[in-house]
Amino acid sequence: MNTFGRIFRISILGESHGECVGVLIDGCPAGQPLSEKDLLADLNRRKSGRKGTTARMEEDIPLIQSGVFNGRTTGAPILILFENKDIDSGAYERIKDTPRPGHADFTAFHKYGGYNDYRGGGTFSGRLTTGLVAAGVIAKMLIRPVEIEARLTEAGGSDDIEGAVRSAIENKDSVGGIVECRAKGLPIGLGEPFFDSVESLLSHIVFSVPGIKGIEFGAGFAGTGMPGSAYNDIILNIKGETKTNNAGGINGGITNGNELVFRVAVKPASGVQGKQQTINLKTGKSAELVIGGRHDTCIALRVPVIMEAVTAIVLADLMGIGQMMPAVVR
Amino acid sequence: MNTFGRIFRISILGESHGECVGVLIDGCPAGQPLSEKDLLADLNRRKSGRKGTTARMEEDIPLIQSGVFNGRTTGAPILILFENKDIDSGAYERIKDTPRPGHADFTAFHKYGGYNDYRGGGTFSGRLTTGLVAAGVIAKMLIRPVEIEARLTEAGGSDDIEGAVRSAIENKDSVGGIVECRAKGLPIGLGEPFFDSVESLLSHIVFSVPGIKGIEFGAGFAGTGMPGSAYNDIILNIKGETKTNNAGGINGGITNGNELVFRVAVKPASGVQGKQQTINLKTGKSAELVIGGRHDTCIALRVPVIMEAVTAIVLADLMGIGQMMPAVVR
Amino acid sequence: MNTFGRIFRISILGESHGECVGVLIDGCPAGQPLSEKDLLADLNRRKSGRKGTTARMEEDIPLIQSGVFNGRTTGAPILILFENKDIDSGAYERIKDTPRPGHADFTAFHKYGGYNDYRGGGTFSGRLTTGLVAAGVIAKMLIRPVEIEARLTEAGGSDDIEGAVRSAIENKDSVGGIVECRAKGLPIGLGEPFFDSVESLLSHIVFSVPGIKGIEFGAGFAGTGMPGSAYNDIILNIKGETKTNNAGGINGGITNGNELVFRVAVKPASGVQGKQQTINLKTGKSAELVIGGRHDTCIALRVPVIMEAVTAIVLADLMGIGQMMPAVVR
Amino acid sequence: MNTFGRIFRISILGESHGECVGVLIDGCPAGQPLSEKDLLADLNRRKSGRKGTTARMEEDIPLIQSGVFNGRTTGAPILILFENKDIDSGAYERIKDTPRPGHADFTAFHKYGGYNDYRGGGTFSGRLTTGLVAAGVIAKMLIRPVEIEARLTEAGGSDDIEGAVRSAIENKDSVGGIVECRAKGLPIGLGEPFFDSVESLLSHIVFSVPGIKGIEFGAGFAGTGMPGSAYNDIILNIKGETKTNNAGGINGGITNGNELVFRVAVKPASGVQGKQQTINLKTGKSAELVIGGRHDTCIALRVPVIMEAVTAIVLADLMGIGQMMPAVVR
Repeated sequence: MNTFGRIFRISILGESHGECVGVLIDGCPAGQPLSEKDLLADLNRRKSGRKGTTARMEEDIPLIQSGVFNGRTTGAPILILFENKDIDSGAYERIKDTPRPGHADFTAFHKYGGYNDYRGGGTFSGRLTTGLVAAGVIAKMLIRPVEIEARLTEAGGSDDIEGAVRSAIENKDSVGGIVECRAKGLPIGLGEPFFDSVESLLSHIVFSVPGIKGIEFGAGFAGTGMPGSAYNDIILNIKGETKTNNAGGINGGITNGNELVFRVAVKPASGVQGKQQTINLKTGKSAELVIGGRHDTCIALRVPVIMEAVTAIVLADLMGIGQMMPAVVR
Repeated sequence: MNTFGRIFRISILGESHGECVGVLIDGCPAGQPLSEKDLLADLNRRKSGRKGTTARMEEDIPLIQSGVFNGRTTGAPILILFENKDIDSGAYERIKDTPRPGHADFTAFHKYGGYNDYRGGGTFSGRLTTGLVAAGVIAKMLIRPVEIEARLTEAGGSDDIEGAVRSAIENKDSVGGIVECRAKGLPIGLGEPFFDSVESLLSHIVFSVPGIKGIEFGAGFAGTGMPGSAYNDIILNIKGETKTNNAGGINGGITNGNELVFRVAVKPASGVQGKQQTINLKTGKSAELVIGGRHDTCIALRVPVIMEAVTAIVLADLMGIGQMMPAVVR
Repeated sequence: MNTFGRIFRISILGESHGECVGVLIDGCPAGQPLSEKDLLADLNRRKSGRKGTTARMEEDIPLIQSGVFNGRTTGAPILILFENKDIDSGAYERIKDTPRPGHADFTAFHKYGGYNDYRGGGTFSGRLTTGLVAAGVIAKMLIRPVEIEARLTEAGGSDDIEGAVRSAIENKDSVGGIVECRAKGLPIGLGEPFFDSVESLLSHIVFSVPGIKGIEFGAGFAGTGMPGSAYNDIILNIKGETKTNNAGGINGGITNGNELVFRVAVKPASGVQGKQQTINLKTGKSAELVIGGRHDTCIALRVPVIMEAVTAIVLADLMGIGQMMPAVVR
Repeated sequence: MNTFGRIFRISILGESHGECVGVLIDGCPAGQPLSEKDLLADLNRRKSGRKGTTARMEEDIPLIQSGVFNGRTTGAPILILFENKDIDSGAYERIKDTPRPGHADFTAFHKYGGYNDYRGGGTFSGRLTTGLVAAGVIAKMLIRPVEIEARLTEAGGSDDIEGAVRSAIENKDSVGGIVECRAKGLPIGLGEPFFDSVESLLSHIVFSVPGIKGIEFGAGFAGTGMPGSAYNDIILNIKGETKTNNAGGINGGITNGNELVFRVAVKPASGVQGKQQTINLKTGKSAELVIGGRHDTCIALRVPVIMEAVTAIVLADLMGIGQMMPAVVR
C-alpha cells in the first residue's frame, strides 16, 4: 500500500502528469513550527536544472493544505501538495503501446490492466519523491539533534562524478551511481530484532524510491570477504564507541550509538536516447523505440536529499515521535 | 514488532536458551494438507552439523500446536514450536557483563535495560530462524508452481567455499559469504510502487535474519557502473521475456515475469575464538574477552534455505493468499 | 491514526475551517469508471439545508486530484478534496478559551497542547465525514450487487421524527436519534473470529463518526432479555436462511448470508442555544458560555448516508477488493 | 487477522478441543515482574464451575513459554499457552453435519470450506478468551494506577441475576445479560478522532469476544431520548471533572479524565437443551437437533473479567506502553 510507518506515518499520492503529487503525513506531534518556506531548501536540492538532470522545470512550490494552524502543526494529518505545471505529455502518447525497456511501463500495463496513467510514468515517476522530501524535512525537525547527510560517492563506477555524467551526456547515454548516507547522534536502542530492524525499515522505504537496486550497511558486501576477527568492531568504552564501524552503527538490528552508515546503488536512468528494441502491446510484435520526453541522464544526482529524507522518516517512526500521547505528558 | 505480512502473516517468538522457539502463522488458507514431517527437509537444510557450523545439535522437531485438524490446515492460526534441548548456558554467565564485539549483547543490554535474556543471544539468536524456515515450507506449498532456489556463491570473498571455511576453522576465525536466491514462474504484476515494492518487502524480511548486511537485485551494485544502454533489459516478446536480466525480474517495484534474482551479504560470524577487547558493563572499564560457547564458523552456510523461506513468505503475501475470503469463493 | 482498512484503505484529512477536507483512498482496483458527478447524490444526502441542520451551506463539490485517468480509476491512490468556503470563524475566537460542554474542545486542548485548530471543531468536525461519504460511493460501486440502506428510525426517543426535531428547534435545544442500517446480498463467510469480526470492523469505523455513542447488531440489547430458545435463529435451508434474524446476519463474527442489520445511537447535537456552565482554560475559573456559530439541531438527520458509506467501506475491505493482484488475474 | 494493537499487540491462537489455546503478547516493556501465578486470580474469575456455567472443568494453568527470564519480562514476545485437558469431543461428531442455530457452525463451514476444527466450536469457542484474560492481567500491571472494574448488571432483562439464571436452568434454556465496565484514573487525551477513537478501539476488541452483540458508552442508547441541554456534561473545574457523565468519559473519541463507562450486551448462550430445527449440510434437508456437549446457561457470568482485560489491553496500547524506545529513555 502507499503508506509507510507505524507512529510517524506517510502516504504518497499523485501522478507525474496529473493534477498534482503530494504526501499525507500522519502522526506529527502538535506544536512544531512549520511553514511552506521551511521545505524549500531540501526541495531545491531534489530539483532538476543541473547538468545531467531533466529539462523539465517544475517550481515545486509546496502547498500545505491541512494540519497547520497559526504557523504550527496541530496534530492532525498534514497534506502537502505540489501542482504539476511544466507538463508535456505529447511524447508519451507515441510510446503508449511500446513499453520502454528498463521502465515500469510493461509491469504497470499488466498490473493495472491498461488503466494506469502512463503519462510521464504516472505514479511510478521519480516526481513522487517530492512528497518524500517534504515529509523528510518535517522528520528532520522532529529528530533533532540527530544529523543526517548523504552524498553521491560514485557515478558510472568512478569517483569522478562530473566526468562520468559529462561523458554520458556526450554519448546520449545514462549513468548510475552510489549514494552514501550517514546519521550522527542516534540514541542506542532504536529498532527491533524481528521484523523491524533498522536495516529492515530503512531498506523497505529506500527500495520504494525509483531506481534503487541495492543497499548495504557498514562494510556491506565487502565485509563478506573479511575474517571475523577483523570485521568485529572492538568496543572502546561504556558509551559503546567502536574502533571500526563495519557494522554501520547497527548490531542485531538495533542502533549501537555509532554513526549509522549505508550505501545505495542507483541504476542508470532508463531514458537513453538511441533506438531500443521492445514489443508492441497491441500487435504483440517486435518494435523499435526512440524515447522522446525529457529525462535525467543521472538520477543518482538527485538521490542524496531523498535518502536523507527517508532516513529521517524511519528514525522519527522508530523514536516513537508521534501524536499518540497527550501533549501535556510528552 | 515481531510480526510480518499483511495477508499471509507470521509472528516469531522464543529465545535461544529458553523453553522453545517458534512461529505463529496467520492467514494460511484452510484445506492445505500439512503435517510435521512436511517441514523436516527444509529444517534439516538449516541445521548445524556440517563443517563450519556450530557443535550445538538441536533435533529441531516441529510441534504443530494449532491450526491443523485431520491433516489439513483449518484457516485458524498455526502455532509451530521447537523445544530447546541441547542447551549449555554456562559459558554465557561468564560473558554476561562483557558484551561480545559484533553481537547484539551491547545493544540488547541498552534497549531492554539489562532485562533481556542474554543466554545464547536470547531472541537475537540465529535459532529464531527455525520458525522462518517452517513458515517458509508452508508458503512454498501455497505459491506453487513458483519455484525458489538459493545457494551460497561465495565465502570469504572466494568462490572456493569449502577452502574458505576450512581455512577459517584452521585460523580459529570466521568467514562471511554471499547467498544468491532465484524464483521462477512468478506472475507479472506482484508488488506496488509505494511502499510495497517487491524489493521493499523482500529486503524488509531479509534484514531481519541475523547477520545480513546487504542486498542487491539483478545487476545490483555492479549495475551502477554500466551505461543505461547496456543496463536496460530489451523486451523480447509479449510475455515480457527480456534478453538480459539486469533488473532482477522487477521493474518499478513490480515483477515483470522474468526470474527474480537477488543476492545478500552475510557477515562473518561474530563468534571468533581469540581474545577480543570490549568493556565491562558494570565497572565501565576495558576488558578482555575470550568467547566460549559453541558457534558457527560460517553462518552463511545455513542461510540459503532461510532466504528461500523468506522469499516464499513475501510472495505468498503479495499473491494475496490468505484466509480472508469465503473458501467457497476461492 | 487517521487510516482505516487493510485492503481497501482510506485516510481522512482536513479541518472544518481550514483550506479543505478530504479523503485519500488506497487500494481501489484499476478500471472502475469514476467521475466527480458520481459522488454528488450521496454527498447531497449528507448536506445541511433541511430543517434541523446547520445554516452553514457548503457546496461540497468534490475535486478528484489523483488516481483517475480518462474517466477510470488507475489503481493509484485517489485523493478527493472539498474546499471550505462558507466559513465564519468569528464565533470561535470568543469561545477559544471556554470549552463547550459535550464537544471535543476540552479534550483536544489537552491532547494537542493547545495547538489544535479550534475553529469549527477543527478536525473533530462532522464536516470530516464528507470524505467518508465520497469513499463510500466508490465502495458501493465495488461491492455490487450488495445493497445498503440506512434510515433514521427514532429522534428524541420517538418515532415521530419530524415532531421531535420541530420541538427541539422551538426549545432552542437539540435532539439525538437512532439510525438503522441494513445490507442485503452479502456472501456467506465475510469476517474473522479474532479480531476482525464483522461487528469489530463495523463498530471501529462507526465510532469514528462524531456523535455516535452506541451500536447493536440484530436483536442487540433487547436480545439480552430473551431466552436462548427464542433468540437462536432457526436455520431454514441449505442457503442458511433463518426464520428470525436476531443475530443481525452475523454468527461468530462472520456473515451468514442473511441481512446484515445494525443500529447506532446518535447523541443530541452538543450545540445548544442557552447559557451553559464551563471553565476558562486560561484563568482556571468557572465561566458561562453562550455558543454562537451555526449548528445542527439533530445531527442524526445526516447520519444515514454516512452509515451506508462506512458499511460499504468495511465490506469492500472484507471482500478483499483491492489493487493487490495483477489486473489480468482478477 | 488474529492480531490486535499497534504498540501493545496481542495475537490469539488455539482451538477448544485441540492441543491448547493461548496468546502471544508483543510489545510488553522489559523489566516487568511476571510469573504464572500472577495470572491465576483473573483466570479463576473467568473459569466455569459456578451455577450457570459449563460442567467442563479446565484447570487453566498458564504456561509462559517465552519472553520472561529471571521473573521479569525481557521485551521479547511473551507466549502463554493453556493445555486442553477436559475434552469430550464425542458429542461434536454427531452434530458435525447439522449446524447448531445461533452458533458459528454454519458460517465456519462455509468460510473454511469444511476444513475448520468443529469440535467444541474450534477457534470460535469462548475458551479462546483465556488468552485475552492472561494478556489483560499484564496490561493491567502496565497501566497502573488506572483501575478497571466490570460487573454483570442484568441477566435475562432483570437485575435479579441469580433468579434469572436459576430460572433458565430449570427451563433447560439459556439467558443473556448486560455487563458494565468502568475505568478510573485515566489521563486526559487518550484516543484519536479518526479512526482510533477510544470507542472505536474498545468496540473493535469487545466484538471479538464471542456472544457480544451491542456496546454503548455513557448514556448510550438512552441518551438519544434526552435533550442536548440535559445530555451535555457541564464542566466543573480545570481538571475537566463534569457534573454528569453522559459522555462516558469520552469526547470526540478522546478521554476527558472522567470515568470511562461502557456497557455490553451479551446474547443468551446458544447451547439450549431442547430440540431445534436446522439443516443437514450433506443432504441439504431439514433436520432436528438435540445438542449434547457441556454448555453454559449464562455466558454473561464469565464476561466481566474479559471486559476488564480487553479494556486494559486497549488502554496499554493507547498509552503507548510498548517496547519501542530504549529502556534507558523510558
